[in-house]
Amino acid sequence: MIIAVDAVGGDFYPESPVKGAIEASKEHRDLNIILLGPEETVKRELDKYEHDSQRIHVKHAPQVIEMDEQPAQAVKTKRDSSIVVGLGMLKAGKCEGFVSAGNTGALLAASTFLLGKLEGVLRPAIAATYPTVKGFRLLMDAGANLEVRPEMYYQFAQMGSIYVEHVMGIENPKVGLLNVGEEDEKGTDDLKEAFDLLSDLDNFVGNLEGRDILPAKADVFVCDGLVGNLLLKLGESIPENMVQFIAKGIKTLELSSEEAEKVVKVLKVSLSQFNYENVGGVPFLGVNGVSLVGHGGSSPKAMKNMVLNAVKCVEHNVNDKIIASLK
Amino acid sequence: MIIAVDAVGGDFYPESPVKGAIEASKEHRDLNIILLGPEETVKRELDKYEHDSQRIHVKHAPQVIEMDEQPAQAVKTKRDSSIVVGLGMLKAGKCEGFVSAGNTGALLAASTFLLGKLEGVLRPAIAATYPTVKGFRLLMDAGANLEVRPEMYYQFAQMGSIYVEHVMGIENPKVGLLNVGEEDEKGTDDLKEAFDLLSDLDNFVGNLEGRDILPAKADVFVCDGLVGNLLLKLGESIPENMVQFIAKGIKTLELSSEEAEKVVKVLKVSLSQFNYENVGGVPFLGVNGVSLVGHGGSSPKAMKNMVLNAVKCVEHNVNDKIIASLK
Repeated sequence: MIIAVDAVGGDFYPESPVKGAIEASKEHRDLNIILLGPEETVKRELDKYEHDSQRIHVKHAPQVIEMDEQPAQAVKTKRDSSIVVGLGMLKAGKCEGFVSAGNTGALLAASTFLLGKLEGVLRPAIAATYPTVKGFRLLMDAGANLEVRPEMYYQFAQMGSIYVEHVMGIENPKVGLLNVGEEDEKGTDDLKEAFDLLSDLDNFVGNLEGRDILPAKADVFVCDGLVGNLLLKLGESIPENMVQFIAKGIKTLELSSEEAEKVVKVLKVSLSQFNYENVGGVPFLGVNGVSLVGHGGSSPKAMKNMVLNAVKCVEHNVNDKIIASLK
Repeated sequence: MIIAVDAVGGDFYPESPVKGAIEASKEHRDLNIILLGPEETVKRELDKYEHDSQRIHVKHAPQVIEMDEQPAQAVKTKRDSSIVVGLGMLKAGKCEGFVSAGNTGALLAASTFLLGKLEGVLRPAIAATYPTVKGFRLLMDAGANLEVRPEMYYQFAQMGSIYVEHVMGIENPKVGLLNVGEEDEKGTDDLKEAFDLLSDLDNFVGNLEGRDILPAKADVFVCDGLVGNLLLKLGESIPENMVQFIAKGIKTLELSSEEAEKVVKVLKVSLSQFNYENVGGVPFLGVNGVSLVGHGGSSPKAMKNMVLNAVKCVEHNVNDKIIASLK
């Protein structure tokens, strides 16, 4: 299997993607990697580490799409960027998956335009992993579609369930519709209609509220991209803000520095449950190909896990399963 | 000044509202209270506590709107309920404010139908207090309007700013528009138009993301009621879930019971910053009268603070200021 890795995406390129890809290749013996980026930059980084040169290759892609570039414009003008070249290879069947920690907007635009949609899919969506007390769960859409029609919620539920089961390893995943109340008739007309459509699914648990996310009352939370993006970023911000809340508590109680240290240690371990490094990156579900995006700040570990998630998507034929589920 | 208090609203009536009202009356010597509910029930509770019978009166309202009743239906059929009678008195000028920890939907419906809208207001909204590292800030709309037109965001910003400044005591409050990114051109067409309208306000800080809420990058966060309701309930659920996260951390580190106790103590003090008792309740801004609603689980302290917030709304002529700001 061949996975292409954007070697010049994210805040810590080329180190994070190159190290992460090498580590992934060590964990999976049948995995071949193509690193995309300016050849000299990537090779210089690659040569720093022990690696199997039979399985790790470099493909020259001289342009770099920066994190703050206007997505559609960047994709259109930078045809020799790692993102456009990598997704072109995926489209041409020269690799089976593509991962990047680069500009999310550009990746979404390029994935949608270059790969197209899977048969039967109305709109691809960002399936974001969400920290809960039971571990990570899925929230989709996390920002690809700010306005969502009822049938799209239904497709998000189907696509999300397949990813959660086969890539995240959660058996019999449950689906919930995020809404302003638990009662069946809650929400806008679109949400009511979505509720009716979702009711056909055996694994639909009904409307869920904001308070039902952190305790993981469902495994897949479906919502529009505006709601999902705001909830996701609020959730991701909990750890660093919790540190502030706890710091005030430590001050109020006038703890000794030894006691404070102990509390901070517990907090650190507890908040590691929010660490996205463990889930690596999130997929664009519904595009015709395996395309994943990671946080800009992705570490080598996060990159490694993102590559391995792409491998799982390929091994479990996630896209074929999605097509079949929508028929 | 006369504030009417629903003595049979919330999960802990009549104790919470009656005790809370008495405590408020002790903190504010010019305050007269009218307790609404079945006369016998309310009087029996009132007689348990020392109180100034010159300033605390009971008004018979034999019907009770339960927490799970269908709001519009309940308001229409229970004309002798504490909610309908109380808001009727407010409308008739027999009191200057009304507070309740009862059925939020019924309170919103009754406040809107019975009081009507303030001059110039397009739609009243729920202005919810939100826990942040700097203390409580305002999020509106938190659920009254699931679909919001651009001019409504503008009015939410104006109404929210006035409440935050005069009732919550935050000088020169800043307003942010919740969106999927910080850049000016982000979001739906409605959000872009709202951004343009809000740009006329001196205190508008631009688009804000989900990660900007807990650090209080603004004092008033404006959004539609679907987004606001989901964000509010997620935020409110942080403390109890954080206890779960921390419990796992304590287990992982195999702390002694003494050490664990210390950590739990810090956590308890830290999470008290989320305690809504301190802010009491939230107003329906834009209705023609001072009407506040509290959590179903409101304690006597929460009820007391809600009554005192109603007093502040009256003393600071919040509604007159809102009318003036929209001219």
